[in-house]
Amino acid sequence: MNPICKLFNIKYPIIQAGMVWCTGWKLASAVSNAGGLGIIGAGSMYPDVLRTHIQKCKLATDKPFGVNIPLLYPNIQEIINVVIEEDVKIVFSSAGNPATWTSILKAEGITVVHVIANTKFALKAQEAGVDAIVAEGFEAGGHNGREETTTLCLIPMIKDAVSIPVIAAGGIGSGKAMLAAFALGADAVQIGSAFAVAEESSAHRSFKNKIISAIEGDTRLAMKKLVPVRLLKNEFADAISIAESEGADRNHLMELLGKARAKLGMFEGDMENGELEIGQVSAMLNAIRPAKEILDEIWSAFKAECARLNNLPNELDF
Amino acid sequence: MNPICKLFNIKYPIIQAGMVWCTGWKLASAVSNAGGLGIIGAGSMYPDVLRTHIQKCKLATDKPFGVNIPLLYPNIQEIINVVIEEDVKIVFSSAGNPATWTSILKAEGITVVHVIANTKFALKAQEAGVDAIVAEGFEAGGHNGREETTTLCLIPMIKDAVSIPVIAAGGIGSGKAMLAAFALGADAVQIGSAFAVAEESSAHRSFKNKIISAIEGDTRLAMKKLVPVRLLKNEFADAISIAESEGADRNHLMELLGKARAKLGMFEGDMENGELEIGQVSAMLNAIRPAKEILDEIWSAFKAECARLNNLPNELDF
Repeated sequence: MNPICKLFNIKYPIIQAGMVWCTGWKLASAVSNAGGLGIIGAGSMYPDVLRTHIQKCKLATDKPFGVNIPLLYPNIQEIINVVIEEDVKIVFSSAGNPATWTSILKAEGITVVHVIANTKFALKAQEAGVDAIVAEGFEAGGHNGREETTTLCLIPMIKDAVSIPVIAAGGIGSGKAMLAAFALGADAVQIGSAFAVAEESSAHRSFKNKIISAIEGDTRLAMKKLVPVRLLKNEFADAISIAESEGADRNHLMELLGKARAKLGMFEGDMENGELEIGQVSAMLNAIRPAKEILDEIWSAFKAECARLNNLPNELDF
Repeated sequence: MNPICKLFNIKYPIIQAGMVWCTGWKLASAVSNAGGLGIIGAGSMYPDVLRTHIQKCKLATDKPFGVNIPLLYPNIQEIINVVIEEDVKIVFSSAGNPATWTSILKAEGITVVHVIANTKFALKAQEAGVDAIVAEGFEAGGHNGREETTTLCLIPMIKDAVSIPVIAAGGIGSGKAMLAAFALGADAVQIGSAFAVAEESSAHRSFKNKIISAIEGDTRLAMKKLVPVRLLKNEFADAISIAESEGADRNHLMELLGKARAKLGMFEGDMENGELEIGQVSAMLNAIRPAKEILDEIWSAFKAECARLNNLPNELDF
C-alpha cells in the first residue's frame, strides 16, 4: 500500500495544498470527500476564524483532513491551541522550524508533515520527528526556497536524504506531472494552483479568472530579499520587478508590499494592486470546476499515463 | 520504435548536449560509440577548429553524431559551410532564429533540431521545418529562457503545442529524471552537466572537480539583463550576483563579464575568475568517469525505475 495513503487513511495519494485566501472548509472538505486529503490553510485566518472552518469541515466530511500552519506567524501558540482543542488529526507545518512544535503536536496524537525546499531542512524536519515531508520546487506558488531548486532536481535528492515518505510539490497540476513526481521517487503529490481555481476555493472569482487566462512566463519568483514568493504579473508585481531590477533593498520592498496585499488581491479581487501568489502550472489551467472533477481528471490521466509508460520497454526494446 | 532513435538511427534516446569548452570530438565520439548521440559543440570553436573536430570524430566513430551551432554567432556562415563541406548529417541549432538556416541545412540532407525554452519558439522552429526540438527548462546549465519555466512545466506544454518529437533538457542526469521526462511526454532526453564531467570531456580537470563537489544551491541563473546563464558560484559569479542585487544595468554586466571568461574558467581552469556554466543537476554528480559508464548507468537506472513504476497500479490499487 502507498505509504501516504496509509499514513492519512486516504484513497488517492493527492494532497491539496493549504494556501492563503483559497483553502477554507469548503475546498478542504470537497477534496477529502473526493478521496484526496483536503487542507485548511491557517495562514490567512485569525484563530477564531480557523476554529469555525475546522468545525464546518468536520460537519461537511467524515473523511480525514488537515490544517496547514505557517510556524513563523506571531499568533502561532493560539493557532496550535485551536488545532489541539478542535481535535484536528493532521497538521502540515511550513515556514519555520519544526523542532519547536512537532513534539507538542505529536504528543497530542497528531500526524505532522513539514514543508521544505532543500535537503538541510528535510533532515532537520526528519530529526524533529515529523511523519512525512513535502518537498517544494522552484515552480511552486507561494513561498519558495532560496536555492531555486526545481521539483525535478529536488525530489530525488530529498528522497535519497531521508527515510520518511516524501510528498512532491511544485509544478504538479496534471496526471503527467503526477506520474513524473512518482518517477522521481515521490510517494505522493501536493497540488496547489490547480485547486486554487476550484469552484469551492475561496479565492476571488477575478483571481480565478486571471489564473485560468495566465500563460507561460506570467509568473515570476519575486522578493528574494524578503521571503521569495511566486507572483502572477500585474501592476503590483511589475512595480516590484522594476524596483528589484534597480536594486531595491529589503526596506524598499517592504514599503512597496505594505500590509494585506495578498488579501486585497486573492480574496477581495483587486487584480492590479493585490499580491497574487500562484505556481507556474497556472499556464496550463483553463477552467473553474468542482474540486472533485479536478481530482478525478488528474487521477484518470495519471492512470492512463501510467499505462502508456508501461509500454516503454516495448517501444525502447529492453 | 522510439521516434528519436529512428530519426538519428541510435540505440538509446539519450543525446549529449553540445556545450562550450566541454564537447569536442573525444566526448562526442565516446557517447555515439556507447549508443547515444554525441554532439560537438561549435559554440567555442573557430571554423577551422570545428573542421578538425568533425574529421577526428568521423575517424573515432562510425556511429551518427551531430554538431551544435549557436545561430547568433558572428561567423555563422563559415560554421555552416564547414558543417556542409564535412558532410555532417545532424545539426542542433540554438540561440537564434531557425527560420534563416533550417531550409539551407535541410536542402543538404541534414537532420535539423532546434533548442527552445518556450512554446512560442517551439512553434516557430516547427514552422521553420526542423525535425525535432529540444525543450530546455530553467534548471539547465548554459543559456536559458527568460520565462524561467522549469522542465516539469515546460515539457507537457511543448508536447501539446507541436507535432514533431520533443527532446527534454534541463535537470536530467539520472535514470529517474529521464523516466520523469518520459512521463511528461518527452520522446528523448538531452543531457549536459552529467557528460561535462566525463573523462572525455574537454573541460578543465579543475572545473570537473568543482562540478562534482557542488551541492544544492551552488548554481544561480545570472545575467538576465544580458542573456540568462546558469553559473556555478565563484568569485566572478559572486561579483555578478552583488552587482545584480544592486541594480547593475546591461553595460555594467558586460563590463564585469569582459571577454573569454567561459574559456578562462571551463577550459583553462581558473576557478575563481572564470565563467562556469553548469546545471542544477551538478549537485547530484559525484564522479569523473568514462562517458560510456555514465550513459550505461543512466540507461540501467532508467530501466530499473521503469520496472518500479510498472508496479504502481498494484501499489495504488487501480
